[in-house]
Amino acid sequence: MLLGRVAGTLVASRKEENLEGLKFLVVRQLDVDNKETGGYVIAADAVGAGVGEVVLYATGSSARQTVLTNNRPCDAVIMAIVDTWEVGGTEVWRK
Amino acid sequence: MLLGRVAGTLVASRKEENLEGLKFLVVRQLDVDNKETGGYVIAADAVGAGVGEVVLYATGSSARQTVLTNNRPCDAVIMAIVDTWEVGGTEVWRK
Amino acid sequence: MLLGRVAGTLVASRKEENLEGLKFLVVRQLDVDNKETGGYVIAADAVGAGVGEVVLYATGSSARQTVLTNNRPCDAVIMAIVDTWEVGGTEVWRK
Amino acid sequence: MLLGRVAGTLVASRKEENLEGLKFLVVRQLDVDNKETGGYVIAADAVGAGVGEVVLYATGSSARQTVLTNNRPCDAVIMAIVDTWEVGGTEVWRK
Amino acid sequence: MLLGRVAGTLVASRKEENLEGLKFLVVRQLDVDNKETGGYVIAADAVGAGVGEVVLYATGSSARQTVLTNNRPCDAVIMAIVDTWEVGGTEVWRK
Repeated sequence: MLLGRVAGTLVASRKEENLEGLKFLVVRQLDVDNKETGGYVIAADAVGAGVGEVVLYATGSSARQTVLTNNRPCDAVIMAIVDTWEVGGTEVWRK
Repeated sequence: MLLGRVAGTLVASRKEENLEGLKFLVVRQLDVDNKETGGYVIAADAVGAGVGEVVLYATGSSARQTVLTNNRPCDAVIMAIVDTWEVGGTEVWRK
Repeated sequence: MLLGRVAGTLVASRKEENLEGLKFLVVRQLDVDNKETGGYVIAADAVGAGVGEVVLYATGSSARQTVLTNNRPCDAVIMAIVDTWEVGGTEVWRK
Repeated sequence: MLLGRVAGTLVASRKEENLEGLKFLVVRQLDVDNKETGGYVIAADAVGAGVGEVVLYATGSSARQTVLTNNRPCDAVIMAIVDTWEVGGTEVWRK
Repeated sequence: MLLGRVAGTLVASRKEENLEGLKFLVVRQLDVDNKETGGYVIAADAVGAGVGEVVLYATGSSARQTVLTNNRPCDAVIMAIVDTWEVGGTEVWRK
């Protein structure tokens, strides 16, 4: 999984049928120091994340292992909202 | 998923049998600011996207989770046409 | 899928049993302007591609969705020979 | 698999239901000379690794092939703690 | 698949149960000109490769399609030892 910050929302009305009901969020990738890497992903939201929240996202086939995304053409999912992480004994982020 | 703009079309008459009927599009990857990243993918089209349209595409095994691509040697699919997305409260793209 | 040009051949007599019969080709990756990117892949050939031909290849689990590669430890397959592609209304390649 | 050093821990109380019980660790990627590459991953811990330990981690669908991670939206798992490795006859690391 | 040279060995006594019996090798990635790219992978050995040998390795779910690696949390496997490859009609490597 990688760390990301929800940066915005995306709307797509014309899509593969079985994607109905999925909410897509624009996620900017973060490094372990909570800095943006420049990378991003458009992820389905499985946990009700809001804009500005720090999240964990999974990619590839693992992104389909949620009730929402199962058997859908979805390769990235937000599967957790991060409360806190620490590196080398120092807290980097707290919600 | 990543953002892309359909840049063109590709024809391949000699191919693995079970690819018959798939339409292949040349997709240039976009970043969240709607700028080309230099990356690209040749994707199967599951939604009737046209040249110039901004789309979402999925890769890997998730690219086979559409009626069109199921059980086929296809690792990238356009699964949605993007209407709009916003970042930091600002609309970046509207169809 | 990505574009590539078949650059050569590879022989491996000692290999996992279920790889018998697969032909391995050296494929240089191309960008959408038909220029080499510097990347490459060793791919199984599912369509009888020859050295010099421009091909499409799929990677990951999708590379196992051909009769030849099914259930084999193969993560890249040439699944089509490209006839032509165009970008922005201009033909980039014709076989 | 890639080499990593466990750099810290991460807590996420709001998450996809079937992730309950997984412990997430912050892992910095190492190269074969035991130097950090700058890359990282947030991985589920399947072996009881502690902060500072050198580990092997697997990504993608292979990350779900442990008792802990099976059928969960988890794309990275620590599946071994490294005792030692050598390159060119020289020991690079010993626990 | 990608080309690599076996650079060394790795020992991990504490690991996910179903990894017992797998031999892990340190593999440096090669390009098509037989030069090291700087990349590496720790791969399970399915063919009895020795240090110094040039090999083919597969990654992702394809790495689990050998008798040795089936259903194990292993995302890279050496599935062939390379005898020879040629590029542009010139032999680059012969064992």
